[in-house]
Amino acid sequence: MPSTSAHRLAGEVDVLAFDIFGTVVDWHGSIAREIAALHPQVDADAFALAWREGYRPAMARVMSGELGWTLIDDLHRMILDAILPRFGLGHLDEAARRQLNRAWHRLAPWPDVVEGLQRLKRRYTICTLSNGNLGLLTNMAKRAGLPWDCVLSAEVFRAYKPDPATYLGVAKVFDLPPQRVMLVAAHHDDLAGARACGLRTAYVEREIEFGARRPKDVSPQPGNDLHSRDLLDLADQLGC
Amino acid sequence: MPSTSAHRLAGEVDVLAFDIFGTVVDWHGSIAREIAALHPQVDADAFALAWREGYRPAMARVMSGELGWTLIDDLHRMILDAILPRFGLGHLDEAARRQLNRAWHRLAPWPDVVEGLQRLKRRYTICTLSNGNLGLLTNMAKRAGLPWDCVLSAEVFRAYKPDPATYLGVAKVFDLPPQRVMLVAAHHDDLAGARACGLRTAYVEREIEFGARRPKDVSPQPGNDLHSRDLLDLADQLGC
Repeated sequence: MPSTSAHRLAGEVDVLAFDIFGTVVDWHGSIAREIAALHPQVDADAFALAWREGYRPAMARVMSGELGWTLIDDLHRMILDAILPRFGLGHLDEAARRQLNRAWHRLAPWPDVVEGLQRLKRRYTICTLSNGNLGLLTNMAKRAGLPWDCVLSAEVFRAYKPDPATYLGVAKVFDLPPQRVMLVAAHHDDLAGARACGLRTAYVEREIEFGARRPKDVSPQPGNDLHSRDLLDLADQLGC
Repeated sequence: MPSTSAHRLAGEVDVLAFDIFGTVVDWHGSIAREIAALHPQVDADAFALAWREGYRPAMARVMSGELGWTLIDDLHRMILDAILPRFGLGHLDEAARRQLNRAWHRLAPWPDVVEGLQRLKRRYTICTLSNGNLGLLTNMAKRAGLPWDCVLSAEVFRAYKPDPATYLGVAKVFDLPPQRVMLVAAHHDDLAGARACGLRTAYVEREIEFGARRPKDVSPQPGNDLHSRDLLDLADQLGC
């Protein structure tokens, strides 16, 4: 549903920065599929949720100074080591753990993503803005065919979202005022962090981010500049 | 000329990191053309050389601590301000200086580059490793169609080449031992820096980097793993 305001906004933005986990790739489905294939006896849905649940507390330990700066690959590994025994997988050896931890480099994009990004890239500079590390994001993009113009990460800014250094960091990299950068994300707290820094925001519905059994409330919330079903709808709204 | 050693090496490397100024893009020709078009009375060849000559001393001032961390965009601007009067252009206003300084974002690739990178990208992760800043490198890539998997820069590592933090930084980003990363560059000092850190090295002949009137000696030198005429030749040697 292209609107007058979306049309005007389209020309007032130069860079689209994308959240990745949940917004661009389906972490729940991808992790659950890997676990189900490797360890059919494990509750794959619960395993994926448990791994992801450890993510925010782990980042909080870094941001509080309790842990030094840590890449997401290493946080994922710490969480993995902690949850494996709970799922009867405490016997996995180092090689198996390393291989499983790389599942986050192999997350599959939502079906609309590749075509949506290709269309958006014609008009905008498109980049990642993820707490994932550069290597993870690059491997993921290469495997999935995500055509980023630039891979930006918490690793570049030495801070995780929602630290303002990340949102303002994108604007600084491109030497732009914050309002010429738009964050695209499926999470209102991430969008709120960007908005507080002066960025534009576009919400993307990802109703089954946590699995088909746990639909999210994806109804529009005030404050975001755009609300889109998926990246094809976002491209439509922005006239791409 | 594919050789047995190149063939073996091809499978022992995962990431190709490219120097940019001179190796991938023709800074001398591009800058000279911009100056010639804007200010036909100026010696465009001398202007391009003077601008580039200020580059190493400016970086040295940063690395010595005399200047704080500075993006190449800002170093280019400092050098530009210093040389303009010498070329009778001291009257240029702020807007004209800003516009001219962005010429470094608009450098044209050598004719073999786009096809060469597309071929190399099929087999390798290809990234930049340049002292240029992320915004400059991204704008350049978008304009020229350079299909990087990842844009890496001195800006990410907070050190300029040949600081070991840059070469080792690439290996660290991709969680690889240094010997699985190859630096591709037209400058022996850059390659020597990478080699000292354990990276593989590929030299690229860019005989007219400093203009057709000043051909460089591009004869093979010992120490590099590969010596290539251009990126198509490099792709041939690596079987891409």
